[in-house]
Amino acid sequence: MSEDAVARERIDFLRGLRATRDFTPEPIPSRALQDMIEVARLTGTASNRQLWDIVVVTERAMLHQLSQVEGSASHLAAAQVGIVIANSGTRPQQAIFDEGRLAERIMLAAHAHGLGSSIGWFRDSGRVAAKILLGIPDDRFVRTAISVGRAASEHGRRRKSLDQLVHYERF
Amino acid sequence: MSEDAVARERIDFLRGLRATRDFTPEPIPSRALQDMIEVARLTGTASNRQLWDIVVVTERAMLHQLSQVEGSASHLAAAQVGIVIANSGTRPQQAIFDEGRLAERIMLAAHAHGLGSSIGWFRDSGRVAAKILLGIPDDRFVRTAISVGRAASEHGRRRKSLDQLVHYERF
Repeated sequence: MSEDAVARERIDFLRGLRATRDFTPEPIPSRALQDMIEVARLTGTASNRQLWDIVVVTERAMLHQLSQVEGSASHLAAAQVGIVIANSGTRPQQAIFDEGRLAERIMLAAHAHGLGSSIGWFRDSGRVAAKILLGIPDDRFVRTAISVGRAASEHGRRRKSLDQLVHYERF
Repeated sequence: MSEDAVARERIDFLRGLRATRDFTPEPIPSRALQDMIEVARLTGTASNRQLWDIVVVTERAMLHQLSQVEGSASHLAAAQVGIVIANSGTRPQQAIFDEGRLAERIMLAAHAHGLGSSIGWFRDSGRVAAKILLGIPDDRFVRTAISVGRAASEHGRRRKSLDQLVHYERF
Protein backbone atom coordinates (compact mmCIF):
# COMPACT_ATOMS: atom_id res chain seq x y z
CA MET A 1 0.00 0.00 0.00
CA SER A 2 1.11 3.58 -0.60
CA GLU A 3 1.85 5.81 2.38
CA ASP A 4 -1.41 7.65 1.73
CA ALA A 5 -3.41 4.44 1.63
CA VAL A 6 -1.87 3.29 4.89
CA ALA A 7 -2.70 6.62 6.54
CA ARG A 8 -6.26 6.43 5.20
CA GLU A 9 -6.77 2.89 6.50
CA ARG A 10 -5.49 3.89 9.93
CA ILE A 11 -7.61 7.04 10.13
CA ASP A 12 -10.71 5.07 9.05
CA PHE A 13 -9.87 2.57 11.77
CA LEU A 14 -9.67 5.34 14.40
CA ARG A 15 -12.86 6.97 13.12
CA GLY A 16 -14.72 3.68 13.24
CA LEU A 17 -14.60 3.05 16.99
CA ARG A 18 -18.05 3.00 18.58
CA ALA A 19 -19.16 2.00 22.05
CA THR A 20 -20.84 -1.38 22.20
CA ARG A 21 -22.91 -2.39 25.21
CA ASP A 22 -24.56 -5.54 23.89
CA PHE A 23 -22.47 -8.60 23.20
CA THR A 24 -23.06 -12.01 21.67
CA PRO A 25 -22.15 -15.12 23.73
CA GLU A 26 -19.35 -15.94 21.27
CA PRO A 27 -15.93 -16.20 22.95
CA ILE A 28 -13.22 -13.84 21.74
CA PRO A 29 -10.00 -15.18 20.18
CA SER A 30 -7.15 -15.50 22.66
CA ARG A 31 -4.93 -13.64 20.21
CA ALA A 32 -7.24 -10.62 20.45
CA LEU A 33 -7.05 -10.63 24.24
CA GLN A 34 -3.27 -10.98 24.11
CA ASP A 35 -3.08 -7.97 21.77
CA MET A 36 -5.33 -5.85 23.99
CA ILE A 37 -3.08 -6.57 26.94
CA GLU A 38 0.09 -5.82 25.00
CA VAL A 39 -1.33 -2.56 23.63
CA ALA A 40 -2.29 -1.67 27.21
CA ARG A 41 1.24 -2.35 28.38
CA LEU A 42 2.69 -0.01 25.77
CA THR A 43 0.31 2.85 26.59
CA GLY A 44 2.05 6.08 27.48
CA THR A 45 1.59 7.45 31.00
CA ALA A 46 2.51 10.66 32.78
CA SER A 47 6.28 10.66 33.32
CA ASN A 48 6.25 7.04 32.05
CA ARG A 49 5.39 5.83 35.54
CA GLN A 50 2.72 3.27 34.58
CA LEU A 51 1.00 3.51 37.93
CA TRP A 52 -1.72 1.02 37.18
CA ASP A 53 -2.33 -2.70 37.00
CA ILE A 54 -5.12 -4.32 35.08
CA VAL A 55 -7.21 -7.30 36.13
CA VAL A 56 -8.43 -9.42 33.23
CA VAL A 57 -11.73 -11.10 34.09
CA THR A 58 -13.26 -13.84 31.96
CA GLU A 59 -15.16 -15.89 34.57
CA ARG A 60 -18.89 -15.58 33.90
CA ALA A 61 -19.89 -15.48 37.56
CA MET A 62 -17.40 -12.74 38.37
CA LEU A 63 -18.42 -10.66 35.35
CA HIS A 64 -22.00 -10.96 36.51
CA GLN A 65 -21.13 -9.93 40.08
CA LEU A 66 -19.15 -6.94 38.87
CA SER A 67 -22.02 -5.88 36.64
CA GLN A 68 -24.30 -5.62 39.69
CA VAL A 69 -22.29 -3.18 41.81
CA GLU A 70 -23.06 0.53 41.99
CA GLY A 71 -22.06 2.41 38.87
CA SER A 72 -22.54 2.18 35.14
CA ALA A 73 -20.83 -1.09 34.28
CA SER A 74 -23.87 -3.34 33.88
CA HIS A 75 -22.63 -4.19 30.37
CA LEU A 76 -20.00 -6.42 32.01
CA ALA A 77 -22.73 -9.03 32.48
CA ALA A 78 -22.76 -9.89 28.78
CA ALA A 79 -19.08 -9.21 28.05
CA GLN A 80 -16.65 -12.00 27.21
CA VAL A 81 -13.85 -10.14 28.96
CA GLY A 82 -13.81 -7.39 31.54
CA ILE A 83 -10.64 -5.40 32.08
CA VAL A 84 -10.57 -3.58 35.40
CA ILE A 85 -8.00 -0.87 36.08
CA ALA A 86 -6.38 -0.78 39.54
CA ASN A 87 -4.67 2.57 39.87
CA SER A 88 -1.91 3.36 42.35
CA GLY A 89 -1.31 6.91 41.16
CA THR A 90 -1.16 9.43 43.98
CA ARG A 91 -1.66 12.43 41.70
CA PRO A 92 -5.36 12.06 40.97
CA GLN A 93 -5.42 14.18 37.80
CA GLN A 94 -2.56 12.34 36.15
CA ALA A 95 -3.94 8.99 37.26
CA ILE A 96 -7.35 9.53 35.75
CA PHE A 97 -5.98 11.13 32.58
CA ASP A 98 -3.80 8.05 32.14
CA GLU A 99 -6.82 5.79 32.67
CA GLY A 100 -8.57 7.59 29.83
CA ARG A 101 -5.59 7.00 27.54
CA LEU A 102 -5.41 3.35 28.55
CA ALA A 103 -9.14 2.72 28.12
CA GLU A 104 -9.10 4.27 24.66
CA ARG A 105 -6.23 2.06 23.56
CA ILE A 106 -7.75 -1.14 24.91
CA MET A 107 -10.96 -0.33 23.03
CA LEU A 108 -8.98 0.36 19.86
CA ALA A 109 -7.07 -2.92 20.19
CA ALA A 110 -10.41 -4.75 20.50
CA HIS A 111 -11.71 -2.81 17.50
CA ALA A 112 -8.59 -3.85 15.52
CA HIS A 113 -9.87 -7.41 15.90
CA GLY A 114 -13.43 -6.48 14.96
CA LEU A 115 -14.59 -6.67 18.57
CA GLY A 116 -16.83 -4.25 20.40
CA SER A 117 -16.15 -2.62 23.75
CA SER A 118 -17.49 -0.14 26.22
CA ILE A 119 -16.23 1.79 29.22
CA GLY A 120 -17.98 1.37 32.54
CA TRP A 121 -17.42 3.18 35.81
CA PHE A 122 -17.85 1.90 39.31
CA ARG A 123 -19.22 4.49 41.70
CA ASP A 124 -19.14 4.91 45.49
CA SER A 125 -19.98 1.53 47.07
CA GLY A 126 -19.33 -0.09 43.67
CA ARG A 127 -15.64 0.80 43.91
CA VAL A 128 -15.33 -0.86 47.29
CA ALA A 129 -17.30 -3.89 46.12
CA ALA A 130 -15.20 -4.33 42.97
CA LYS A 131 -12.01 -4.24 45.05
CA ILE A 132 -13.31 -6.86 47.43
CA LEU A 133 -14.59 -9.11 44.63
CA LEU A 134 -11.26 -8.95 42.79
CA GLY A 135 -8.95 -8.97 45.80
CA ILE A 136 -7.46 -5.61 44.86
CA PRO A 137 -5.39 -4.10 47.68
CA ASP A 138 -6.91 -1.25 49.66
CA ASP A 139 -4.36 1.31 48.53
CA ARG A 140 -5.42 0.98 44.89
CA PHE A 141 -8.09 3.08 43.31
CA VAL A 142 -10.67 1.25 41.20
CA ARG A 143 -13.04 3.15 38.95
CA THR A 144 -12.89 1.94 35.35
CA ALA A 145 -13.86 -1.36 33.71
CA ILE A 146 -13.82 -2.09 30.00
CA SER A 147 -16.22 -4.66 28.58
CA VAL A 148 -15.17 -6.51 25.44
CA GLY A 149 -17.00 -8.98 23.24
CA ARG A 150 -18.47 -9.44 19.82
CA ALA A 151 -21.01 -6.69 19.22
CA ALA A 152 -24.66 -7.71 19.14
CA SER A 153 -25.60 -4.16 18.16
CA GLU A 154 -23.87 -0.82 17.88
CA HIS A 155 -24.58 2.47 19.56
CA GLY A 156 -23.65 4.84 16.76
CA ARG A 157 -24.27 8.10 18.52
CA ARG A 158 -24.40 11.55 17.03
CA ARG A 159 -21.37 13.78 17.48
CA LYS A 160 -21.13 17.54 17.42
CA SER A 161 -20.03 19.15 14.16
CA LEU A 162 -16.51 20.50 13.70
CA ASP A 163 -17.53 24.16 14.09
CA GLN A 164 -19.06 23.33 17.46
CA LEU A 165 -15.79 21.95 18.75
CA VAL A 166 -12.81 23.38 16.89
CA HIS A 167 -11.27 26.86 17.01
CA TYR A 168 -8.31 28.01 14.97
CA GLU A 169 -5.50 30.05 16.50
CA ARG A 170 -7.80 31.65 19.13
CA PHE A 171 -10.83 30.38 21.00
CA MET B 1 -5.44 -8.17 3.04
CA SER B 2 -6.83 -11.01 5.13
CA GLU B 3 -8.70 -10.19 8.33
CA ASP B 4 -5.69 -11.37 10.33
CA ALA B 5 -3.31 -9.18 8.37
CA VAL B 6 -5.55 -6.15 8.88
CA ALA B 7 -5.70 -6.82 12.63
CA ARG B 8 -1.92 -7.23 12.74
CA GLU B 9 -1.29 -3.96 10.88
CA ARG B 10 -3.64 -2.11 13.24
CA ILE B 11 -2.13 -3.60 16.38
CA ASP B 12 1.38 -2.77 15.15
CA PHE B 13 0.17 0.75 14.52
CA LEU B 14 -1.17 1.04 18.09
CA ARG B 15 1.98 -0.50 19.53
CA GLY B 16 4.18 1.88 17.59
CA LEU B 17 3.08 5.14 19.20
CA ARG B 18 5.90 6.90 21.04
CA ALA B 19 6.09 10.36 22.56
CA THR B 20 8.13 12.81 20.51
CA ARG B 21 9.35 16.03 22.03
CA ASP B 22 11.76 17.22 19.32
CA PHE B 23 10.41 18.26 15.96
CA THR B 24 11.91 19.26 12.63
CA PRO B 25 10.90 22.65 11.14
CA GLU B 26 9.07 20.86 8.30
CA PRO B 27 5.38 21.84 8.07
CA ILE B 28 2.82 19.07 8.45
CA PRO B 29 0.41 18.23 5.60
CA SER B 30 -2.96 19.95 5.94
CA ARG B 31 -4.62 16.59 5.35
CA ALA B 32 -2.94 15.24 8.47
CA LEU B 33 -4.20 18.14 10.56
CA GLN B 34 -7.69 17.71 9.12
CA ASP B 35 -7.64 14.03 10.07
CA MET B 36 -6.44 14.76 13.61
CA ILE B 37 -9.32 17.16 14.08
CA GLU B 38 -11.86 14.75 12.63
CA VAL B 39 -10.59 11.89 14.79
CA ALA B 40 -10.84 14.24 17.79
CA ARG B 41 -14.43 15.06 16.90
CA LEU B 42 -15.39 11.39 16.82
CA THR B 43 -13.79 10.60 20.18
CA GLY B 44 -16.15 9.05 22.68
CA THR B 45 -16.92 10.97 25.86
CA ALA B 46 -18.76 10.24 29.09
CA SER B 47 -22.49 10.12 28.31
CA ASN B 48 -21.57 11.39 24.80
CA ARG B 49 -21.58 14.95 26.10
CA GLN B 50 -18.41 16.16 24.32
CA LEU B 51 -17.77 18.86 26.91
CA TRP B 52 -14.63 20.19 25.34
CA ASP B 53 -13.47 22.45 22.53
CA ILE B 54 -10.03 22.34 21.00
CA VAL B 55 -7.95 25.30 19.89
CA VAL B 56 -5.65 24.53 16.96
CA VAL B 57 -2.54 26.72 17.09
CA THR B 58 -0.09 26.97 14.20
CA GLU B 59 1.27 30.52 14.65
CA ARG B 60 4.95 30.35 15.58
CA ALA B 61 4.82 33.26 18.02
CA MET B 62 1.84 31.81 19.87
CA LEU B 63 3.38 28.34 20.07
CA HIS B 64 6.48 29.95 21.53
CA GLN B 65 4.49 31.94 24.09
CA LEU B 66 2.52 28.88 25.15
CA SER B 67 5.75 26.91 25.54
CA GLN B 68 6.97 29.43 28.10
CA VAL B 69 4.13 29.28 30.62
CA GLU B 70 4.27 27.23 33.82
CA GLY B 71 3.96 23.52 33.22
CA SER B 72 5.50 20.85 31.07
CA ALA B 73 4.60 21.97 27.57
CA SER B 74 7.92 23.46 26.47
CA HIS B 75 7.88 21.10 23.47
CA LEU B 76 5.23 23.37 21.92
CA ALA B 77 8.06 25.73 20.94
CA ALA B 78 9.27 23.41 18.20
CA ALA B 79 5.89 21.91 17.26
CA GLN B 80 4.23 22.64 13.94
CA VAL B 81 0.81 22.46 15.55
CA GLY B 82 -0.35 22.73 19.12
CA ILE B 83 -3.80 21.49 20.05
CA VAL B 84 -5.09 22.92 23.31
CA ILE B 85 -8.10 21.40 25.06
CA ALA B 86 -10.63 23.79 26.62
CA ASN B 87 -12.83 21.73 28.90
CA SER B 88 -16.26 22.77 30.11
CA GLY B 89 -17.01 19.57 32.01
CA THR B 90 -18.32 20.16 35.50
CA ARG B 91 -17.61 16.62 36.68
CA PRO B 92 -13.86 16.81 37.05
CA GLN B 93 -13.17 13.06 36.93
CA GLN B 94 -15.15 12.50 33.75
CA ALA B 95 -13.69 15.63 32.18
CA ILE B 96 -10.08 14.63 32.73
CA PHE B 97 -10.71 10.99 31.79
CA ASP B 98 -12.22 12.25 28.52
CA GLU B 99 -9.18 14.48 27.95
CA GLY B 100 -6.97 11.42 28.24
CA ARG B 101 -9.05 9.60 25.63
CA LEU B 102 -9.00 12.61 23.33
CA ALA B 103 -5.25 13.19 23.68
CA GLU B 104 -4.50 9.54 22.90
CA ARG B 105 -6.60 9.65 19.75
CA ILE B 106 -5.10 12.90 18.47
CA MET B 107 -1.63 11.40 18.95
CA LEU B 108 -2.67 8.23 17.11
CA ALA B 109 -4.11 10.25 14.22
CA ALA B 110 -0.79 12.09 13.95
CA HIS B 111 1.02 8.75 14.13
CA ALA B 112 -1.20 7.43 11.30
CA HIS B 113 0.40 10.10 9.13
CA GLY B 114 3.91 9.30 10.34
CA LEU B 115 4.01 12.38 12.57
CA GLY B 116 5.26 12.62 16.12
CA SER B 117 3.42 14.10 19.08
CA SER B 118 3.62 14.67 22.78
CA ILE B 119 1.28 15.61 25.60
CA GLY B 120 2.06 18.71 27.64
CA TRP B 121 0.32 20.02 30.73
CA PHE B 122 -0.09 23.59 31.87
CA ARG B 123 0.14 24.02 35.61
CA ASP B 124 -1.09 26.69 38.06
CA SER B 125 -0.26 30.11 36.56
CA GLY B 126 0.33 28.40 33.22
CA ARG B 127 -3.35 27.50 32.97
CA VAL B 128 -4.39 31.09 33.50
CA ALA B 129 -1.75 32.34 31.07
CA ALA B 130 -2.77 29.88 28.34
CA LYS B 131 -6.39 30.97 28.66
CA ILE B 132 -5.47 34.63 28.36
CA LEU B 133 -3.14 34.03 25.41
CA LEU B 134 -5.77 32.04 23.53
CA GLY B 135 -8.83 34.06 24.58
CA ILE B 136 -10.44 31.04 26.20
CA PRO B 137 -13.44 32.00 28.38
CA ASP B 138 -12.97 31.98 32.12
CA ASP B 139 -15.42 29.16 32.73
CA ARG B 140 -13.33 26.70 30.73
CA PHE B 141 -10.64 24.56 32.23
CA VAL B 142 -7.33 24.43 30.36
CA ARG B 143 -4.72 21.83 31.24
CA THR B 144 -3.66 19.78 28.22
CA ALA B 145 -1.81 20.70 25.03
CA ILE B 146 -0.68 18.28 22.36
CA SER B 147 2.38 19.10 20.26
CA VAL B 148 2.56 17.68 16.76
CA GLY B 149 5.27 17.75 14.11
CA ARG B 150 7.71 15.61 12.25
CA ALA B 151 9.90 13.80 14.78
CA ALA B 152 13.54 14.87 14.98
CA SER B 153 14.17 12.06 17.45
CA GLU B 154 12.12 9.56 19.39
CA HIS B 155 11.84 8.91 23.07
CA GLY B 156 11.42 5.15 23.04
CA ARG B 157 11.05 4.59 26.73
CA ARG B 158 11.12 1.34 28.59
CA ARG B 159 7.81 -0.12 29.71
CA LYS B 160 7.07 -2.53 32.52
CA SER B 161 6.75 -6.19 31.59
CA LEU B 162 3.36 -7.90 31.35
CA ASP B 163 3.71 -9.71 34.68
CA GLN B 164 4.30 -6.39 36.40
CA LEU B 165 1.02 -4.99 35.12
CA VAL B 166 -1.46 -7.73 34.32
CA HIS B 167 -3.43 -10.01 36.63
CA TYR B 168 -5.83 -12.74 35.54
CA GLU B 169 -9.21 -13.19 37.20
CA ARG B 170 -7.99 -11.83 40.56
CA PHE B 171 -5.50 -9.17 41.52
